[in-house]
Amino acid sequence: MEAEFLKWLRWQLPPHPRLLVGPGDDAAVLQIARQAPCVITSDMVNDGVDFHLDQSDWRLVGRKALAINLSDLAAMAARPLAAVVSLSLPRRQAMEIAVRLYEGILPLADEFDVVLAGGDTGTWTGPLVISITAIGQLTERGALLRSGARPGDALVVTGHFGGSRLGHHFQFTPRVREALALHAHYRIHAATDVSDGLSLDLSHITDESGCGALLELGAIPVSAAAASLAQNSPDGTTALDHALADGEDFELILAVPAEDAERLLRDQPLDVPLTRIGTFVAEPGLWTETADGGRARLEPRGYEH
Amino acid sequence: MEAEFLKWLRWQLPPHPRLLVGPGDDAAVLQIARQAPCVITSDMVNDGVDFHLDQSDWRLVGRKALAINLSDLAAMAARPLAAVVSLSLPRRQAMEIAVRLYEGILPLADEFDVVLAGGDTGTWTGPLVISITAIGQLTERGALLRSGARPGDALVVTGHFGGSRLGHHFQFTPRVREALALHAHYRIHAATDVSDGLSLDLSHITDESGCGALLELGAIPVSAAAASLAQNSPDGTTALDHALADGEDFELILAVPAEDAERLLRDQPLDVPLTRIGTFVAEPGLWTETADGGRARLEPRGYEH
Repeated sequence: MEAEFLKWLRWQLPPHPRLLVGPGDDAAVLQIARQAPCVITSDMVNDGVDFHLDQSDWRLVGRKALAINLSDLAAMAARPLAAVVSLSLPRRQAMEIAVRLYEGILPLADEFDVVLAGGDTGTWTGPLVISITAIGQLTERGALLRSGARPGDALVVTGHFGGSRLGHHFQFTPRVREALALHAHYRIHAATDVSDGLSLDLSHITDESGCGALLELGAIPVSAAAASLAQNSPDGTTALDHALADGEDFELILAVPAEDAERLLRDQPLDVPLTRIGTFVAEPGLWTETADGGRARLEPRGYEH
Repeated sequence: MEAEFLKWLRWQLPPHPRLLVGPGDDAAVLQIARQAPCVITSDMVNDGVDFHLDQSDWRLVGRKALAINLSDLAAMAARPLAAVVSLSLPRRQAMEIAVRLYEGILPLADEFDVVLAGGDTGTWTGPLVISITAIGQLTERGALLRSGARPGDALVVTGHFGGSRLGHHFQFTPRVREALALHAHYRIHAATDVSDGLSLDLSHITDESGCGALLELGAIPVSAAAASLAQNSPDGTTALDHALADGEDFELILAVPAEDAERLLRDQPLDVPLTRIGTFVAEPGLWTETADGGRARLEPRGYEH
């Protein structure tokens, strides 16, 4: 079905000045205008692990496969340029699945001006596998890394956390515009996106930065979905537990120098709320304040691959 | 196992001036020095389709997954820069498989100065899936496309064809250096690499160029492996049949203007032989000469995805 599908795809893809040679040759040729460093990220998602094809709108599955890559570019404050999409399709309904996936991929690519620069499409007897590699470019302000947080920095997040599996994981908007806007107007020392869990992804920042973080648990913006899950929890999992560990929120975690954080929180320059949920500290690990003013260790939790 | 594997991988990867940020952050950052267009290609290979894990040296499987991408870059005359490797590993022996795959990937990447710029690694209950996206850069001579062949051009190939599955498909050297050398010193109108089958891949050139090709079947360099397969053929498949349709030769097919072809074939500037196997003609399709001096249509055959 590859030839038939490629014909369909070539018809769907509008010409783009950045795509000098599109699908149909041995490789795609991309014009990258400025001499800025390239940012590359890749995610592979599988039926039965990252989604359940028989229970999902296939367009949303395709959309999500691209969106999680754009979220990684956002975490670096990179402007998206292009993506390469590879599919291993189940033989049954291969063409229909491929078309539906692209019906989710194409509008999101268009919204973020992402050129679809080819890929590989085949069928097999296994479950659906989608591998997308996205390429972006840094602004003159450089990359936001996980490794730049310093003790005293404010711990700031975008949006709300927890309960993503009730729908948000298919609907979220990657924080590309937000990251670029913040990086342009405020000093940001470190950033990551929340894919595996707020506490686990925060621990990636503290580990890479060689510091720790003291969380104000009461300040964490808990989503309505997390509250809803907690209400129906058979095992007493709280909404806060969901917020700390569910993952797939695809919000940003930021380390912001204190004076910029003050201005940032006052300005609230984004459509999505910015909330301070703690402070980076010298002592490695994650911490919460106890009632007697001491510190208790918080074990990072989330999705382990 | 992702964390454990990433730790191993970070230890394996030497620092490279082109890789500003390597594995361990949300994305990799790559310094592309000159302002030349980027070439991007991607291949996804699956256990049971493209290889059989239980019958193969896992290092060779990893090597091949990268080599086929480098062959696509060669077909465009692009210099390899970087690759992103994503793995969906069977739960059983995941770490061992990942390490063996990389033991095949790393030396080939080193040989062609390919920076490994991260990727995605996970486990699942399905068979092994490897998705590699390679990035290259064009020289000032631009890309070799499939679409540039003109009637009168000589049809020239590197190397030998057929019987790749006896071993060549795991051992081949992608024709990167050869393509760059030819593109630098001779006019080449069109090129592709032979992955699906000599006749089928040739038809991609003629289709994209809006012309045809007249093949001299007797001139086609048939590999010893093809002859060996033919000797043991239960159904009378000839060595030439194998050469025309087996695929995975990963040699180059070139459309070369007549005067450059003459010089090229006299020079034989490569370590691998260059052979003229026909001429591009105005009439679309593939053709052979009949005994009475007429033309017979040759149906392109090979691996259909």
